[in-house]
Amino acid sequence: MAGTDVPEREAITLSHVAQRAGVSLKTASRALNGEQHVATATRERVLAAAADLDFRMNPQASMLKRGIATPAVGMITGDLANPFYSALAKGVEKEVRAVGAHLTIASSDEDPDVERDLVREFADRHVRGLVIASTRASHEDIAVLIARGTAVVFVDRPPVGVEADSIVIDNYGGAYTATQHLLAVGHRHIAFVGDYERLSTHRERRRGYTDALAEAGCEPIVRVDSHDMLAGRDTVTELLTGDQPVTAVLAGNNRIALGAVRAIAATRPEVALVGFDDFDLSDVLGVTTVAHDATEMGRLAAQRILERTGRMTFERVVMPTRLIERGSGEKPPPA
Amino acid sequence: MAGTDVPEREAITLSHVAQRAGVSLKTASRALNGEQHVATATRERVLAAAADLDFRMNPQASMLKRGIATPAVGMITGDLANPFYSALAKGVEKEVRAVGAHLTIASSDEDPDVERDLVREFADRHVRGLVIASTRASHEDIAVLIARGTAVVFVDRPPVGVEADSIVIDNYGGAYTATQHLLAVGHRHIAFVGDYERLSTHRERRRGYTDALAEAGCEPIVRVDSHDMLAGRDTVTELLTGDQPVTAVLAGNNRIALGAVRAIAATRPEVALVGFDDFDLSDVLGVTTVAHDATEMGRLAAQRILERTGRMTFERVVMPTRLIERGSGEKPPPA
Repeated sequence: MAGTDVPEREAITLSHVAQRAGVSLKTASRALNGEQHVATATRERVLAAAADLDFRMNPQASMLKRGIATPAVGMITGDLANPFYSALAKGVEKEVRAVGAHLTIASSDEDPDVERDLVREFADRHVRGLVIASTRASHEDIAVLIARGTAVVFVDRPPVGVEADSIVIDNYGGAYTATQHLLAVGHRHIAFVGDYERLSTHRERRRGYTDALAEAGCEPIVRVDSHDMLAGRDTVTELLTGDQPVTAVLAGNNRIALGAVRAIAATRPEVALVGFDDFDLSDVLGVTTVAHDATEMGRLAAQRILERTGRMTFERVVMPTRLIERGSGEKPPPA
Repeated sequence: MAGTDVPEREAITLSHVAQRAGVSLKTASRALNGEQHVATATRERVLAAAADLDFRMNPQASMLKRGIATPAVGMITGDLANPFYSALAKGVEKEVRAVGAHLTIASSDEDPDVERDLVREFADRHVRGLVIASTRASHEDIAVLIARGTAVVFVDRPPVGVEADSIVIDNYGGAYTATQHLLAVGHRHIAFVGDYERLSTHRERRRGYTDALAEAGCEPIVRVDSHDMLAGRDTVTELLTGDQPVTAVLAGNNRIALGAVRAIAATRPEVALVGFDDFDLSDVLGVTTVAHDATEMGRLAAQRILERTGRMTFERVVMPTRLIERGSGEKPPPA
């Protein structure tokens, strides 16, 4: 008879999940919708049951019911004023638009509580996929989204406490190579100026720096929590005018590098500089940088969102970096 | 008795609007919801009736019904890769977040059709307000949104064909002042390199330039449609290496200025430059710019969104510009 070719998948309903987890239909629904007042153990049991049965809510059907025809992809970024995120968003947008879908972006402004609210908001809107540049230390609530069939990809910073696709930069390798480069030029007093301590990207970069220094038998000189240009400028100024004999600086991100350029020009122009992340006009200014391709990272993330069809295995892509020599990182230490 | 203090406003319903417009309830609803297949004359009659009765749909109530407690503000920007829009978005976000609301951003990528779709999408989501940096030539569909009670503010580029709040830059004055500045230094052969011809901001800037030149009895040298850094670089390179005797360049926006910096450094470093829009590192590079405050523009737009309470008069705010002298615009022509 007609209809026998309809995939069996359709037959799996929320009732099956509830039954398997040994909870009521209402509890199963609440757990899968990420609502509050569900015990952690219960939620985990429901999620496990949903995964076992390959059950997913159908956001497309829900969207159609609400009159929204275009599949929407959401993106949570960090600081809107940072061009790294703009380039990342541009890559996601390009790929999403190519299939006729729309991207909406919201910024956590590096506030973990805001990010949590935004995850919930995108979940309420039943986006088809969500790209997250996370500022949080853990992501248990994302498991609920994934179980509901939302494609989630973490970019720049990896997921913690949940399995999900991620696309990150080779932060350790980039910083290690940059530090080795400054050592090879002859520097022994190389300072590292980094971002917020809680960001894994920052910690990986610092680790690359300290490992390279340790191999050369040099002492690390570390400053952290410089998130923007002004903080970077002030920290580097203090380093260069203080007691410590600093002859080279590794700037932990693009904003810190902009501050370092100003601080070095104003205090000791002979000091060497390598910046992590390339930036506009680094070529004109002759600043050596650890470059990577944020737009390509965004493109890859969007591809994974659009291609995901319920697979429950996850990928981790590590984007390479390359050192671009432009002069500032090749200045030798004073003889 | 209790409840007599409830404002009479609540008593105005869609039925009153339909009756006044002489259409069915369904047609009134369709017209106000911006659905298709409503004749223009009919829609205008319904909108006029709604305005006369001060009737507005209640997006807050609708949101609460859908379980969304936080009022959401939407923003449509142009090119995500342009820091001008990042600064603008940052200003909107700051103000929106201060009242506990969320901002979601979508980019038209300067495509008028995409912008039209995004307006519809934000309307479907019943956002409380919408900030639009428009790339379209007209905005009749926005009248429907405003009639429904959505607060709409146009930023950077003014509305056409609809009355709405707008916050724009003094594009004419900024370009006029910059051109007078180059004339005062002694230049007579000043080229203007501008953005897409259809953008009103670009046309205003060009008009400021040509008026200042005309007053000085100089011939304009105009190139248009340079939207990004590479196009700006190539256009300025062609200008400086061609037959025309150009001794100074006015770059029509921040991206064109980045291209001009590169082109001038590579071909004729003695050529003077003023850029419209300030940009990162313009201070370090010594580039004279026409600066304005995009973040403040965003803040003002968000304030108007959040304060709007059904007033049917509209404001146009013009943000001032100021010339920042940094050296590149003060280079004299060859003797």
